[in-house]
Amino acid sequence: MEFNFEDHPHRRYNPLTNEWVQVSPHRAKRPWQGQVEKVDEEQRPEHDPNCYLCAGNTRINGEVNPDYKDTFAFQNDFAALLEEIPSGEVNEGNGLFKAKSERGLCKVICFSPRHDLTIPEMDVDGIRKVVDLWCKEYAELGARDYINYVQIFENKGAVMGCSNPHPHGQVWAQESLPLEPEKKQANQLEYFDKNGKTMLSDYIAEELKQGTRVVYENEHFVALVPYWAVWPFETMIVPKRAVARVTDLTEEERDALADAYKSLTVKYDNIFQVSFPYSAGIHQAPTDGEEHPEWHMHMTFYPPLLRSATVKKFMVGYEMLANAQRDITAETAAARIREQSLTHYKSAVL
Amino acid sequence: MEFNFEDHPHRRYNPLTNEWVQVSPHRAKRPWQGQVEKVDEEQRPEHDPNCYLCAGNTRINGEVNPDYKDTFAFQNDFAALLEEIPSGEVNEGNGLFKAKSERGLCKVICFSPRHDLTIPEMDVDGIRKVVDLWCKEYAELGARDYINYVQIFENKGAVMGCSNPHPHGQVWAQESLPLEPEKKQANQLEYFDKNGKTMLSDYIAEELKQGTRVVYENEHFVALVPYWAVWPFETMIVPKRAVARVTDLTEEERDALADAYKSLTVKYDNIFQVSFPYSAGIHQAPTDGEEHPEWHMHMTFYPPLLRSATVKKFMVGYEMLANAQRDITAETAAARIREQSLTHYKSAVL
Ligand SMILES: O=P(O)(O)O[C@H]1O[C@H](CO)[C@@H](O)[C@H](O)[C@H]1O
Ligand SMILES: O=P(O)(O)O[C@H]1O[C@H](CO)[C@@H](O)[C@H](O)[C@H]1O
Repeated sequence: MEFNFEDHPHRRYNPLTNEWVQVSPHRAKRPWQGQVEKVDEEQRPEHDPNCYLCAGNTRINGEVNPDYKDTFAFQNDFAALLEEIPSGEVNEGNGLFKAKSERGLCKVICFSPRHDLTIPEMDVDGIRKVVDLWCKEYAELGARDYINYVQIFENKGAVMGCSNPHPHGQVWAQESLPLEPEKKQANQLEYFDKNGKTMLSDYIAEELKQGTRVVYENEHFVALVPYWAVWPFETMIVPKRAVARVTDLTEEERDALADAYKSLTVKYDNIFQVSFPYSAGIHQAPTDGEEHPEWHMHMTFYPPLLRSATVKKFMVGYEMLANAQRDITAETAAARIREQSLTHYKSAVL
Repeated sequence: MEFNFEDHPHRRYNPLTNEWVQVSPHRAKRPWQGQVEKVDEEQRPEHDPNCYLCAGNTRINGEVNPDYKDTFAFQNDFAALLEEIPSGEVNEGNGLFKAKSERGLCKVICFSPRHDLTIPEMDVDGIRKVVDLWCKEYAELGARDYINYVQIFENKGAVMGCSNPHPHGQVWAQESLPLEPEKKQANQLEYFDKNGKTMLSDYIAEELKQGTRVVYENEHFVALVPYWAVWPFETMIVPKRAVARVTDLTEEERDALADAYKSLTVKYDNIFQVSFPYSAGIHQAPTDGEEHPEWHMHMTFYPPLLRSATVKKFMVGYEMLANAQRDITAETAAARIREQSLTHYKSAVL
């Protein structure tokens, strides 16, 4: 018997994080008798008078949202990070009790005044305005002296902890470099120092050659299921040029990013004919004033669904305590995404 | 204004993993309009003819469960790891495409024939038999030549991906050392080499002195919310003696572990008067034939609930893409667990 990566359990290596994922391809066949998720079939109005993100409405702190026409950003009324705190530090018990104050701020970014839309249902021009807002927030927040990292992300769907269906994302900006980008920075730097090129340049060149994990491509971006994906339909959107941060993208590249973001999420929605939940976010260079030629920015999507619109992958027990684990191969997932239409199922003419 | 660790956002350091967690104590006050979980109020029979874990029933592959009286272990019918696979390896594209076959096996361990019980509702004698089964499985699986690590764990509750309420856990045994125990091993080894004692000996000595994070203690074990806890009510049960693995526990210590396991989970159930979901598992020395004096075994509990029986903490967006984050301090959570009665709410006489 020959070893076969489509059938036999194995581990794959993630060079960005220097960690391995356990892959168990044969396991997708087990029956599922556990928890099923609710499908959100609700028809939403274009404007909801009770939504704190809709234009013209009053938020919990009494502030009134402007009558915005495309995007709108404001400081989160319940921010996890705060700007105005004193600094403090603990280092006791032989280094076993260490803590440090952490300054930062959290913003909410509305993608559109339309309460009833999601990214895959918006047009590319509208999404391009979201890309511009990312650039503006990254530049403005990153310019503050004490802000060294800006995390842009989006939680889509109730199953991903999103508490308001109005299309929106978040930006958390802070003093320290968080764990995930820190790992990716260290490994990209090592690769760059050794090879004189970014890790992801070499990686996507090979992926484009092989094609098996690519799900979408335009002139400036490629969307693919990484070889080392953890979540069932995990993907990343990577610029073909080695760009360290969103603000380094050209006008044309910004358009292409908006196009890739839409195309990928339309395909996602089409898989199970449901608004496909995910957490997505951009990993890019810190705003610490350094150049960071090792950084190759990318947008990562972690969608929880596994088998259907209602059965997700549970990252519990073994996965929490031991090691990341997945039940279908990256190649199987990629084929499934790739074969989806670029026309959203809701707008498809039957 | 003085920095105050009970109110101001900060980061805390986890010396076992060498990672930081973002703590945002003030954030627990935000209103919640998102997803709520279902509470399982179902009255279960002592024996369910449709349960594949109950004694005497037939499993999906045709095997009949024995008429077991306390615990029962069998190989998972849909195992993520398999024993009989050929070996294979990939290393291509300048180290960017690396994969390796992984041998192993997965067992299911039933805690009791009683379909209607959970650990906090079992008596200490019954739980002691579970501890003995852990020892037996760790010893037997670990003795196999190619098995280098044995992960014992339990997923409790539908929200933690548990698809059968019959009280049970799992054991996954494999060739490689998974990521979480690998990190803990490296950091414990460094500490041991430097200090000539296990990290957790020093750590729990200080915790017992301070008392603020301790939630339960008996002669041989302490249960506490670690200073660096990530999940809202995360705890660990640690032996007072530096024991590397379950099989090194004395008879008395095994009894004490059963008592601590019951006491902690009774308190958990009492917090929201609901069967408290969690993933729990034992981190201990690998079964690679080495002595591992640096390892100080411990049982870790990751419970998802945050505010009530139906509102959990979502580890999404920022947490997936950037950094672990929590909304209440370890001390607040510990006080809440500590103050709970040792009498289970279901058996309390009103
Ligand atoms: O093995 P089970 O109970 O079917 O499955 C459960 O536990 C496993 C180990 O933590 C996870 O991989 C699964 O996602 C979860 O649903
Ligand atoms: O900020 P929100 O949308 O209220 O909250 C959501 O996203 C945050 C950032 O990922 C998480 O910390 C919360 O657990 C989640 O519910």
